[in-house]
Amino acid sequence: MNYSKIIHQIEHELQDFPNNGKVASYIPELSKVDPEMFGLHLYCIDGNHHSFGDSTERFSIQSISKVFSLTLAMQLLGDDLWKRMDVEPSGNAYNSLFQLERENGIPRNPFINSGALVISDILVSEYDNPKDEILKFVRKISGKHTINFNEKVAQSEKQHGHRNAALANLMKSFGNIKNDINAILDVYFYQCSLAMSCEELASAFMLFANEGKILETNEQVILPIKVQRINALMQTCGFYDEAGEFAFRVGLPGKSGVGGGIVTVHPEKYSAAVWSPKLNQKGNSLLGMETLERLTTKTGLSIF
Amino acid sequence: MNYSKIIHQIEHELQDFPNNGKVASYIPELSKVDPEMFGLHLYCIDGNHHSFGDSTERFSIQSISKVFSLTLAMQLLGDDLWKRMDVEPSGNAYNSLFQLERENGIPRNPFINSGALVISDILVSEYDNPKDEILKFVRKISGKHTINFNEKVAQSEKQHGHRNAALANLMKSFGNIKNDINAILDVYFYQCSLAMSCEELASAFMLFANEGKILETNEQVILPIKVQRINALMQTCGFYDEAGEFAFRVGLPGKSGVGGGIVTVHPEKYSAAVWSPKLNQKGNSLLGMETLERLTTKTGLSIF
Amino acid sequence: MNYSKIIHQIEHELQDFPNNGKVASYIPELSKVDPEMFGLHLYCIDGNHHSFGDSTERFSIQSISKVFSLTLAMQLLGDDLWKRMDVEPSGNAYNSLFQLERENGIPRNPFINSGALVISDILVSEYDNPKDEILKFVRKISGKHTINFNEKVAQSEKQHGHRNAALANLMKSFGNIKNDINAILDVYFYQCSLAMSCEELASAFMLFANEGKILETNEQVILPIKVQRINALMQTCGFYDEAGEFAFRVGLPGKSGVGGGIVTVHPEKYSAAVWSPKLNQKGNSLLGMETLERLTTKTGLSIF
Amino acid sequence: MNYSKIIHQIEHELQDFPNNGKVASYIPELSKVDPEMFGLHLYCIDGNHHSFGDSTERFSIQSISKVFSLTLAMQLLGDDLWKRMDVEPSGNAYNSLFQLERENGIPRNPFINSGALVISDILVSEYDNPKDEILKFVRKISGKHTINFNEKVAQSEKQHGHRNAALANLMKSFGNIKNDINAILDVYFYQCSLAMSCEELASAFMLFANEGKILETNEQVILPIKVQRINALMQTCGFYDEAGEFAFRVGLPGKSGVGGGIVTVHPEKYSAAVWSPKLNQKGNSLLGMETLERLTTKTGLSIF
Repeated sequence: MNYSKIIHQIEHELQDFPNNGKVASYIPELSKVDPEMFGLHLYCIDGNHHSFGDSTERFSIQSISKVFSLTLAMQLLGDDLWKRMDVEPSGNAYNSLFQLERENGIPRNPFINSGALVISDILVSEYDNPKDEILKFVRKISGKHTINFNEKVAQSEKQHGHRNAALANLMKSFGNIKNDINAILDVYFYQCSLAMSCEELASAFMLFANEGKILETNEQVILPIKVQRINALMQTCGFYDEAGEFAFRVGLPGKSGVGGGIVTVHPEKYSAAVWSPKLNQKGNSLLGMETLERLTTKTGLSIF
Repeated sequence: MNYSKIIHQIEHELQDFPNNGKVASYIPELSKVDPEMFGLHLYCIDGNHHSFGDSTERFSIQSISKVFSLTLAMQLLGDDLWKRMDVEPSGNAYNSLFQLERENGIPRNPFINSGALVISDILVSEYDNPKDEILKFVRKISGKHTINFNEKVAQSEKQHGHRNAALANLMKSFGNIKNDINAILDVYFYQCSLAMSCEELASAFMLFANEGKILETNEQVILPIKVQRINALMQTCGFYDEAGEFAFRVGLPGKSGVGGGIVTVHPEKYSAAVWSPKLNQKGNSLLGMETLERLTTKTGLSIF
Repeated sequence: MNYSKIIHQIEHELQDFPNNGKVASYIPELSKVDPEMFGLHLYCIDGNHHSFGDSTERFSIQSISKVFSLTLAMQLLGDDLWKRMDVEPSGNAYNSLFQLERENGIPRNPFINSGALVISDILVSEYDNPKDEILKFVRKISGKHTINFNEKVAQSEKQHGHRNAALANLMKSFGNIKNDINAILDVYFYQCSLAMSCEELASAFMLFANEGKILETNEQVILPIKVQRINALMQTCGFYDEAGEFAFRVGLPGKSGVGGGIVTVHPEKYSAAVWSPKLNQKGNSLLGMETLERLTTKTGLSIF
Repeated sequence: MNYSKIIHQIEHELQDFPNNGKVASYIPELSKVDPEMFGLHLYCIDGNHHSFGDSTERFSIQSISKVFSLTLAMQLLGDDLWKRMDVEPSGNAYNSLFQLERENGIPRNPFINSGALVISDILVSEYDNPKDEILKFVRKISGKHTINFNEKVAQSEKQHGHRNAALANLMKSFGNIKNDINAILDVYFYQCSLAMSCEELASAFMLFANEGKILETNEQVILPIKVQRINALMQTCGFYDEAGEFAFRVGLPGKSGVGGGIVTVHPEKYSAAVWSPKLNQKGNSLLGMETLERLTTKTGLSIF
């Protein structure tokens, strides 16, 4: 498969694509991004890299970081983790309190905010310095040691984080948050502020295309059965209220963030990260989804 | 892969599996089944068949039939179909009116009852005799010409079908049902009453493992891109409120029915149907899910 | 109290009242009304009548009729009635299926559509000819023997009644509808089509201001304790999603209809009916509410 | 009317009333109360007092305090208050986040927790020392200068207040809380901890039976029109999810608290407070409701 040719063809086709998406503005820091940024990085299991556009520019990965913290929590806790959250799509806006209230403080899955807050709570319980551990882990699996949190974004999240504080307090009232709420919010907001490029994201997510091993070093970081489950979760829950649409159009597991990034994984074939800040109405990168749909259509490859 | 050995090993392991599931009783006719029935049929893309137990016994396939009617509707309508329903998991009990009301009569996906009723409405609009067409289609893709509706089950459904009538009336109030409600309910109830064996289901679903072609005849019944989409829908929406769990534990697209059947598909590898009437709390065959989880664990093969 | 002077003062004040309400259009027949009609009739317990405007013009009383059928059902059934419905405000749009589904087919109160359908079901069970009984009852308590159903409105309701059919089917699935759905819908649609004037409504509702006795004849039609309960129900549930607003602004029990009528009752003082077809966003007569608010403000009399 | 005779008759009748209610236990401090306490105080507009049982024993008035803080806020703000909350019954459990989320952080009414938190926010904005002002106000209208907060109850509320913190944070995310969340929670928890006897509550609530004037001093504390509105709010929203039931059975405006107290008002006739700690399933005093129902039945007096 000539991936290089295919992705440049897509880049060319999308040059004049009418993009009526909107940059996320719920925190001021996010709205400062250049809305026209657009890049893709494809990392093949044979070790080859292909990319176009702003693929080495770092951006706020936001909810994509939930895959990293989930992976850490799955290493630490095993199946006990699933007593504190479910693995089902929410069928609701990603930060809804409704379901959480009806279901007694048990989040639907680890990729909605409430689920990610429980993951933060676990990391706070298990680690002396959870933020350091997250950073260490991301640097290790991507092989990029300058990756860091964006302090301004983290502070901006904190100042506008009342909805997440509501979720955490609600879960604490049900006994599903063990630690101090400010401590877990701190971990959560920093994690969301991670700044990475498409190249770095594709490198990190190769772990999930390569049965849990870092491709460069062949180190087994997480068991294959756990990777399959993380991929299954990305497939059914990785796109807020649009997981079905992504499965339907793209046909690969993936995770998006309101910073405009989407990472997707074709097990045993490749990982790919795309970035375009303008979001569709469901909060996913409009051009990103279009790009990935064309990628699987042109390669004829989806997991289905 | 020695599939034969693997499935007999599973059969052996599950011999004394504690099964506290309950046979569906919402219509009297369904509750008459022998709760201890248990069978599996695996059909490989190389043409080999493997089975155990009551795999040739016919049972009420119920919601599994929704995959057949969706396939017919996708052949007839193309993308217009998706103006009348979405492709998202519901995150709610499979027959809930709540979401349907909030979302203006647009069903979440074709596999919840409301979505299947819209599909029936389409078949009533497009065909002179939709029930005949469904039967013809199922017989053709399975190659089994004695497959038929179960009259008693269909009548029993009709007598207890007020909830489906409520769904149809609600959608009609929003303009998303075009035909007479009794006509579409009739198609729906007959379709649900289809009686098939695991062997017949695996044969029919080979279509979705084989890029839309009947394996025996090589006839292209539906385009590969559409098959990918049907598989994606089965993955995200095929198990009522437990689609995530099935993806997480089994890792394959599939569809279940309250008759206790589950069919699953590994694209380009096999189709497999399992039957055990006792259902878990979410309405899926308890032993069926256990069987398929062991199948993908032992073969090490999931799409993720 | 010089009621005559007060109501003419209100009529004068409201002459140029900016009314951006909208005539109900959910059934075509209702939208044919002259939107500028405006009338009031006040009937005092001392036997005096006061009125202005189009107070003798008949209009479609719609949901106001639910008070009549409830009164009949309370005469027939006693406290058993309340096993089949509750007496609580719904806190939701008046025809919502959400609550009904969550609360197992038990309507919140007799004045939302689902509750009124259960009342219809009771009348169908108890009477050979429920429509005749309703008519007979309304004629008797109002003393106006030419009151009748509006055939065109009833037929128009029937043609657009899918939402009510959905409610009835949902309740039947829970066992809370005993009779044939078409039979109860027929009673319901005819009852809603009753055509009455403000004068006739005020006369009929004097029953609820006069401890259950017809003022003209002194006949005790319903016990005082039951009248208190009907008045309490009108207070807490008589105005769809705006019962609190009416209690807050007007401070009297009452019932409104989408035909633009509102009847209100001050126990032991008066009954009053007002009509203006343009509705506010909650479905209550905009000018009607304004009129009644001024009436209780100017008279200084509310039950609170 | 011989009130004294009537209330002692009720006391006698209820001596052996089977009470399967349960003392509130959501905060440990509340569960320490003697469950068999039972008292009533009736204060007539002619100045006479009637009582039985533990009517001078102080208890935690909890949500009854919301009437006091609402009255203060209505004095301070006028109609602007109603931009920040509605006057409708909630139709949901009293602390539900669902409706608050769907309705953009605007509470349904001032008597559900979210509404009372907005009232606290207003008092924090308007007063230098809101807790002192609440205390001063309650002492003044009741004429009992030893009334005070219960420090232990307030601290216990604080330790178990995560659900209220969730509500406050959710509203802050919608911009409907202006001050620091801990500051408003502090006011709220102290207000709920007010300890008063039936005698003191009946004295304080005479304000609402007496058109806003303190009966002893004739001082006009709040305008009659505002009193009518507070009474209307108590009628439609004063009993959590059981306001309709209270209107139906008792027929008077009132307010209950999970401490087992209920205060009710018959405008221009009397105020009455009853206390029995065992609650029914909706969170209202079981014996308290029974007592008040008998009171209005025996006196033949309800506002309806």
